[in-house]
This record gives sequence, structure tokens and C-alpha cells, in this order.
Amino acid sequence: MPRRSVAQTATSRRNILGRAIDLASVEGLEGLTIGRLADSLKMSKSGLFAHFGSKQDLQLAVVNAAAAAFEEAVTVTEEAGLARLRDLAGAWLRHLETGASRGGCFFAAASLEFDDRPGRVRDRICELTASWMAELQKAATEACEDGDLDGDPEQIAFEIHAFLQEANWSFQLHGNAAAFERATAAIGRILEAGRAAAGR
Amino acid sequence: MPRRSVAQTATSRRNILGRAIDLASVEGLEGLTIGRLADSLKMSKSGLFAHFGSKQDLQLAVVNAAAAAFEEAVTVTEEAGLARLRDLAGAWLRHLETGASRGGCFFAAASLEFDDRPGRVRDRICELTASWMAELQKAATEACEDGDLDGDPEQIAFEIHAFLQEANWSFQLHGNAAAFERATAAIGRILEAGRAAAGR
Repeated sequence: MPRRSVAQTATSRRNILGRAIDLASVEGLEGLTIGRLADSLKMSKSGLFAHFGSKQDLQLAVVNAAAAAFEEAVTVTEEAGLARLRDLAGAWLRHLETGASRGGCFFAAASLEFDDRPGRVRDRICELTASWMAELQKAATEACEDGDLDGDPEQIAFEIHAFLQEANWSFQLHGNAAAFERATAAIGRILEAGRAAAGR
Repeated sequence: MPRRSVAQTATSRRNILGRAIDLASVEGLEGLTIGRLADSLKMSKSGLFAHFGSKQDLQLAVVNAAAAAFEEAVTVTEEAGLARLRDLAGAWLRHLETGASRGGCFFAAASLEFDDRPGRVRDRICELTASWMAELQKAATEACEDGDLDGDPEQIAFEIHAFLQEANWSFQLHGNAAAFERATAAIGRILEAGRAAAGR
């Protein structure tokens, strides 16, 4: 059998991880075993072991691939401040509504699944979710420095993130599509209150 | 061996379910098998089968026991309207901060774990969480009818619930104890805005 090229291996790894994210979004990241993934891909377990040495390595690879997909989906054009904050919240919400995995936001589910499972997977989920919260907070801080908002940037980021996660929860569990409009309205109200306080 | 009394059986069932809630809050409700629970209780699997016929029956019994614990913890003395809404949100938040299971809010984790697993367990989680959201909304509706708040009661309930869940998420994943104060401040701000709009 001819050896596979580097490009073929990379494509194959990407396809495997795509399926793994999809499976994990439905069955949980802990439910994702090399055996179950091999069944779903109709691949041999030994073939998967060649890509991922252990269940934990597979879980970490899936978390990183899901993070790359999230960061690719939630892109913003505005560079700073209030415009960036609005843009970021809007893109994040659209991603939850239309672009997330079959099982909804990968990180919302993985957060609550792994919050009691110390180790490298939990650490990575913490690090990634903290970095996205920090993006919201940075834009809020700039908006305050620009005089466009008056308020506590960390509180603003907390509240916006709460609405993003609530929309995902309400849609995934209760099938409530109006939750995205509710979150949009709630975020709009926070920003309006901050603008009013800043006299804008 | 003498037969056990009805009271002994009930106590035993309560103890088993207490341990099961604790285990499920950490390892997930799907990770809770009769075998794993038997190991943790140092009981025989057949002893547990006598209490719970199947894994699904065990999961349902755990969901119902966790609901009873939640409803016992989140009690309010105020009977209606704005006072009840404040009281309910405060008691719910205190429960998340100090009284929830080792692994945090049982229903936050179970919601995201089961949102893609159709069946009786998912249906029951939906029904219970919807009934608690309805309690918030009912108190908000009364507060609006009393003229104490002006706003959309469903939106008010959505926002308050978002902050409760965000506090649990932030505390469980990031160890952020200040999240409870942030949620309290955010809920206070919603109610103040509603009061101001009502001219109170």
C-alpha cells in the first residue's frame, strides 16, 4: 500500500475531528471513545490510534478543533470599542443559532461536563472560555475608555455572556427559537443603559 | 434474614438517591450506571436492581429526587409579585452558591447533557426546568399587574434565569465566587429598570 501524503493525512485528521465534534456535541466529550468514533467512521480502532494516542489526546484534539471552528465562525470586522462589542455579541449569537454543532454549543456542554473532571481537558476548556470572555471584556473596556459606555466592563461582559449561554440553553433544551431574539434584546438594553449613563 | 420494614426501605432508597445525585452531579447522569452506583455504595448490583429496575428508571428517580431537593431548598416566604420575584431569585442564587451538589447545579449540567437524548429523562428535565421558569415568570407578571414593574414578564424571567445559570457556570468552571455578586447586581438592575419604567 502506498504511503499517504502529508496532505492526505491532514485532510483525514480534519474529517475525523469534524465527526468527533459532532458526536461529542450530542453524546458528550466523555462519551467519545476511540471505539465509538471508529464505529461511526467505519474505521479500524488501530487506524484511529495512529492519529490519536489515547482517549485524552483525542478529547484534547477535539476541544482544539472545536475552538478553531468557533474562532473561525465568530469573526468580527470592527476593530475596537463599542462597535466591536456589538459585532462580537451578534456574531456569537448567530453562530449559536445557525452554525453550532448538531448538539448546540460545544463549549457550553463541555464546560458543565468537565467542570468536575480535573486534568488537561478541563484546563484547556477553562483557558479557551476565559479567553473568549476576555475578548468581550476588552471591547467593553475600550468602549468605556472611549466614553461610549459608562459601567463596569467585567459586569458588562458577564451579562452579555449570560444571555448568549441562556439562548443556547433555551433553544437546545426547550426548542425556543425566540430565545435568540430575547438575548438580542437583552444585550441591546445593556448597551443602551451603558450609553445613557455615559451621556451618549 | 428478617424482612425490612417499609420505613427501612424508604430510608435506604433516600440514601441511595442522595449518593446517586452526588455522583451524577460530578460524572454526569449518563455516566451513572447501576454498577458504578453499587460500587460507590458498596452494595450488590442485585440489591440496587430491587430498587430501580433499569438505568433509565434510576436516572428518572435521580432527576425527581434532585427536583425535590431543589424545591425544598428554593423556598420563598413572599406570596406574590415583586417581593416574591426578588425572594425567589435570591433563594435560587443562594442554593447555587452554597446548597447545590458537589458538582454544582444538577439541572444545569443535566440539561446540556440530555438536550440531545430524546426520551423520558429528557422530557422530565424539560418539564421541571420549564415549571421553575414559569414560577419566575408568574411572579414577574404579578409584579407588572400590581404596577410595581413595567416590562415583558417573559423577558424579565429570561434575563433573571440567564444570570442564575451564568453564576453557576462561572463558579463551577472558573471558581469565580464573585459571580454570585455579579448575578445579584445584574438582577437588581433589571428590577430597578422595571420599577423606574413603572414610575415607582
